[in-house]
Amino acid sequence: MHLTLIGIGTGNPEHLTLQAIRAINAQDLILIPEKGEGKADLAELRRTICDDVLTNPETRIVAFDLPVRDEATADYRQRVDDWHDAIALAWQDAMATHPAAQKVALLVWGDPSLYDSTLRIAARLNPAPQIEVIPGITSLQALTAAHAIPINEIGAPFTVTTGRRLRDDGWPPGVDTIAVMLDGTCAFQTLPPDGYHIWWGGYVGMEEQIICEGPLAEVSAQILKMRAEARENHGWIMDIYVLRKEK
Amino acid sequence: MHLTLIGIGTGNPEHLTLQAIRAINAQDLILIPEKGEGKADLAELRRTICDDVLTNPETRIVAFDLPVRDEATADYRQRVDDWHDAIALAWQDAMATHPAAQKVALLVWGDPSLYDSTLRIAARLNPAPQIEVIPGITSLQALTAAHAIPINEIGAPFTVTTGRRLRDDGWPPGVDTIAVMLDGTCAFQTLPPDGYHIWWGGYVGMEEQIICEGPLAEVSAQILKMRAEARENHGWIMDIYVLRKEK
Repeated sequence: MHLTLIGIGTGNPEHLTLQAIRAINAQDLILIPEKGEGKADLAELRRTICDDVLTNPETRIVAFDLPVRDEATADYRQRVDDWHDAIALAWQDAMATHPAAQKVALLVWGDPSLYDSTLRIAARLNPAPQIEVIPGITSLQALTAAHAIPINEIGAPFTVTTGRRLRDDGWPPGVDTIAVMLDGTCAFQTLPPDGYHIWWGGYVGMEEQIICEGPLAEVSAQILKMRAEARENHGWIMDIYVLRKEK
Repeated sequence: MHLTLIGIGTGNPEHLTLQAIRAINAQDLILIPEKGEGKADLAELRRTICDDVLTNPETRIVAFDLPVRDEATADYRQRVDDWHDAIALAWQDAMATHPAAQKVALLVWGDPSLYDSTLRIAARLNPAPQIEVIPGITSLQALTAAHAIPINEIGAPFTVTTGRRLRDDGWPPGVDTIAVMLDGTCAFQTLPPDGYHIWWGGYVGMEEQIICEGPLAEVSAQILKMRAEARENHGWIMDIYVLRKEK
């Protein structure tokens, strides 16, 4: 079996690459999660994309219910491992509905390489499929595009990290620029407020996109307010930001 | 004037997004560098892309000679600054050939946010244009896609840096994974050979793509050989790699 993980970008159907469109149309089967993501505005995106670009009449779309994480499992890594196991089984069940399908694909939010579990779930499949990855626009790129900024200073390094790491470990050593993903708690609040510039965005790349930038000390409260209001309105939020030490 | 910087990916014309194609067709003028990049296989890529996707008969394409860096300037930052000044002047001259053009674009290799100078050159234009960025697939994504790997370990940070930094400063603190770009001298050779895994690629995303991965101690010599031979054959090489500390 040949499994293609197709990066679809961050919610703008126009983030699709020509390579992704070609890959979508080369499949026997496309697996689409229908419940469990908990992000209402996203649930229909994969179907919209297929409606827009799928022209191969042989390609079948199969929906599966995305398992939910068992929050009763105390250990974070164990909870994630169990969840990935369950998702792999859900894929297997969905694929079993079309046993002749040789070419199967999943449409992956953003890019399969960046803080995404799809490759790790795919590694659980038995027998092991041949895996192909089609890169897609990441939320980090959608953020820097929205602000029209380079992420790095000239010749300088930057670190990509998570809200949890920033909160627990503080500012990463050795870099003046960081990008923070998977932050449910606005971890930038745990930094000393002076001396940083922030470029923040919610729903980056989507129609609902909201952005804010400025010295952290000046805009931190505004971002918290924008984020809370947007989350209230949409029922969910995904946000990301770049922080740079001011010189 | 409205200046759009359009990320075009890493040399595969199918890296183009639908957003990029729409942006290309929305322009009055597209500026294309014709000399000076020193990478023969790339010189025609932008024209090929325009030939493939430009359907707006009103859009004009203007070529300009990319200035070369003055290697007589000893200071690296000064040399780059002077070069960027010269490129901004070359853009101005090219735009002056079509003074009525209100919407002007440049096609940017990879993504304008990642180790790319286009935004910094655009900031030199006078009067300052309104700037829009269209994200594109980066070489880092093309590399991880080619190897079908996630760049991060679960919930863990990673650092993106340059060959120069790795060579001069050693392994960055606080991370087990790094991505190295802009490395003309295979800086991985300066690491102690044991304890690292490398995923390397040259011309990632292009037809000429070559990749190699394994424990650094085992594949380092092979990568040096592949790189030297490919550079000899093509007259240039662009490569990138991810290194991870082995557990």
